Amino acid sequence: MRMYDLIVKAREGAELSREEVRFIVREYTAGRIPDYQMAAWCMAVYFRGLPPKTTAELTLAMVDSGATLSWSELDTVIVDKHSTGGVGDKTTLVLVPWVAATGVKIAKMSGRGLGHTGGTLDKLEAIPGFRSDLSRDEFIDSVQETGLAIVGQTNDLVPADRKLYALRDVTATVDSIPLIASSIMSKKIAAGADRIILDVKVGKGAFMQDLSGARRLAETMVDIGRKTGRNTVALITNMDQPLGFSVGNVLEVREAIDTLRGKGPADLTELCLALGAEMVVQAGKADSLPAGRELMNKTLATGGPLEKLRQMITRQGGEAGVIDDPSILPTAAVVQEVVATKTGYIEDIHARTVGLIAMGLGAGRQRLEDEIDLAAGVELLVKVGDAVQKGDIIARVHGATEDKVAAAKAQVQEAISWSALPVVAPPLLLDRVSR
Amino acid sequence: MRMYDLIVKAREGAELSREEVRFIVREYTAGRIPDYQMAAWCMAVYFRGLPPKTTAELTLAMVDSGATLSWSELDTVIVDKHSTGGVGDKTTLVLVPWVAATGVKIAKMSGRGLGHTGGTLDKLEAIPGFRSDLSRDEFIDSVQETGLAIVGQTNDLVPADRKLYALRDVTATVDSIPLIASSIMSKKIAAGADRIILDVKVGKGAFMQDLSGARRLAETMVDIGRKTGRNTVALITNMDQPLGFSVGNVLEVREAIDTLRGKGPADLTELCLALGAEMVVQAGKADSLPAGRELMNKTLATGGPLEKLRQMITRQGGEAGVIDDPSILPTAAVVQEVVATKTGYIEDIHARTVGLIAMGLGAGRQRLEDEIDLAAGVELLVKVGDAVQKGDIIARVHGATEDKVAAAKAQVQEAISWSALPVVAPPLLLDRVSR
Repeated sequence: MRMYDLIVKAREGAELSREEVRFIVREYTAGRIPDYQMAAWCMAVYFRGLPPKTTAELTLAMVDSGATLSWSELDTVIVDKHSTGGVGDKTTLVLVPWVAATGVKIAKMSGRGLGHTGGTLDKLEAIPGFRSDLSRDEFIDSVQETGLAIVGQTNDLVPADRKLYALRDVTATVDSIPLIASSIMSKKIAAGADRIILDVKVGKGAFMQDLSGARRLAETMVDIGRKTGRNTVALITNMDQPLGFSVGNVLEVREAIDTLRGKGPADLTELCLALGAEMVVQAGKADSLPAGRELMNKTLATGGPLEKLRQMITRQGGEAGVIDDPSILPTAAVVQEVVATKTGYIEDIHARTVGLIAMGLGAGRQRLEDEIDLAAGVELLVKVGDAVQKGDIIARVHGATEDKVAAAKAQVQEAISWSALPVVAPPLLLDRVSR
Repeated sequence: MRMYDLIVKAREGAELSREEVRFIVREYTAGRIPDYQMAAWCMAVYFRGLPPKTTAELTLAMVDSGATLSWSELDTVIVDKHSTGGVGDKTTLVLVPWVAATGVKIAKMSGRGLGHTGGTLDKLEAIPGFRSDLSRDEFIDSVQETGLAIVGQTNDLVPADRKLYALRDVTATVDSIPLIASSIMSKKIAAGADRIILDVKVGKGAFMQDLSGARRLAETMVDIGRKTGRNTVALITNMDQPLGFSVGNVLEVREAIDTLRGKGPADLTELCLALGAEMVVQAGKADSLPAGRELMNKTLATGGPLEKLRQMITRQGGEAGVIDDPSILPTAAVVQEVVATKTGYIEDIHARTVGLIAMGLGAGRQRLEDEIDLAAGVELLVKVGDAVQKGDIIARVHGATEDKVAAAKAQVQEAISWSALPVVAPPLLLDRVSR
């Protein structure tokens, strides 16, 4: 088998056999296919796509490039949730304890933030003492005893994806739906997921900018799930404006706690309800989505989810007192208000811009090795559609220095568009894709 | 400037500025742009093409990547001819002395064969003693004194093209019209051509398989010529069957000599007349193509072209006696006849197959470093459209061993298609593209 011939096949949009796909992944990971051939292959795939069967084979071949996890000790169906990444997306912090409180065991692996999007691990580590680097035994024991745990992804899963992603990142071949889909799904499958609930973000703060692209990505991932025996459901959700009000690690932990108290932003609460209903159905705790939604709602009213969060924080070495007294969390040296300069309706809060402002304040990373400022971020007080009077406070900026905060305040003004006429708030849930 | 951004531009089919194109060529040649980024760029160009202005800029940037030649001592317009490569294509051997005999000075650089196509240098070196490695001074002196010389391409021209071609060859990005066009034109311009006559072959034995592709290649090269101030004309010519009757180095030298005697195959003679008419017009020896054709015809009748060939061979150290006594040329140990197995009309003689048969006999190279058997080859006795009786000799196979010749004979039978009904011979000249 020659990589040259497989590049020609990709160029022609032809289906590859299982053996051909495995040859590519194995030989590339081992360094026997050079980067320049793989780069040509990726660019051909960028233009031609990959047939569905080939995409599924690629996913499984990537899974087999490294270690895979199995949670057979837990004796339960492993339901995993994945978001394609957005701004202010603290869903995992809310959803994991909430679903765990319904009796579903949740063994969750999460990542760190990069660029304008945040990461669950960074947010959790804003809690003093919290450890995300549990050993496998500690992780299993935590899930067994408390019903939930959130840890960092181990580095030995899907090495092919790490190597391939690094190449795609410097060859302008990241934006390929089958390559994105197989990358995401391979990591979920390698981490031992039996059922996968996907939150595919679309809009100004998301990787996918338009609904048709998001739908194709969702359909591709659901199809991979079908072909690999992992039942997969995808919700396509709006990411034009940040999710909730807060963008920044400590700020988002506070908002997550509020939401588990039943006092969270409507959009975040609604998203957790929708994703949670899918999860409890997949886990067999409810036999329909309406029943799943009812179970989620009832569970929230019991206070169980907040209790689960407390148990998890304690089990993972964190200061659970933050739940009752969030002032224990780090705070920024400078906090200043952003004031409305006119009267009108909020037409747009550009999610990507807000994400970049938060990153500029130190809340996120430009490079993986950057340190972050846990307390920094943007706290919005408005959502799209809100009516605002000139002089109203519309946001607070949290940062380490006057200079940084002053710059961010000006940028927040720029990130917000106004309308003189009333604006209808956009729907959050745009579509649902399942087998 | 970042190569990443230029890959994105190529992906989008955008025009690149002169500075951007020069950045790519300079930094890639210097090894500061890695192969994997260049491979991604080439594959994007494969799919999106390059805008005409960018193609011309790329050509000039490649020219400037190495040495360039100037023939100002010759005090004449340098008219160069280039063929995109075919089977049995001994045109240069005939055309250079023929045009030189009209009084046009010809300083020709040629290459070697690879794969199913032959190369002029290999053919010339079938003549005992012939040297193609003249020094620059020897080359200039030869052209000054005898009006013609044919030498090998020096290695310091267009290093960017050599490096880029090697990468394209292993990344399935050779088949890109702007990349082919800029590769060919950069070498002609670097070699000092003022006017360029292109023979773009199309058909079963050519790089371009269909007329529309050949036309686009021709138009792209003529456009590069226009944009870079080198008047360029392209003839598009049929390469479905081999040119002339002979395929193989010694066999083709014999056929070239016959043609300069006025006894050559009709198609080869016609092609040389058409290309020669273009060349003498470009050189200012005739003011129209019909006048150029008449000049070519008259010149052949004088015997001047054969005399020019004799002078060139002698000047370059070769045994000019081959002209009067071709038996001086190397001969194959085994020569066997291929006999028609049926009565009918020749419908097709698959040029690429015949080229590969000749290569298999040792007449050509699979790799650049392979040795070749100068005497080996296939001598056809028929052309498409000929009526043949069962038992007629239709070809002779020349080779080193009985085994090789036996295998080649069977393959020659396979390369020929028959028709029970009369077949119209296809036209040789398919189109002409000029500014």
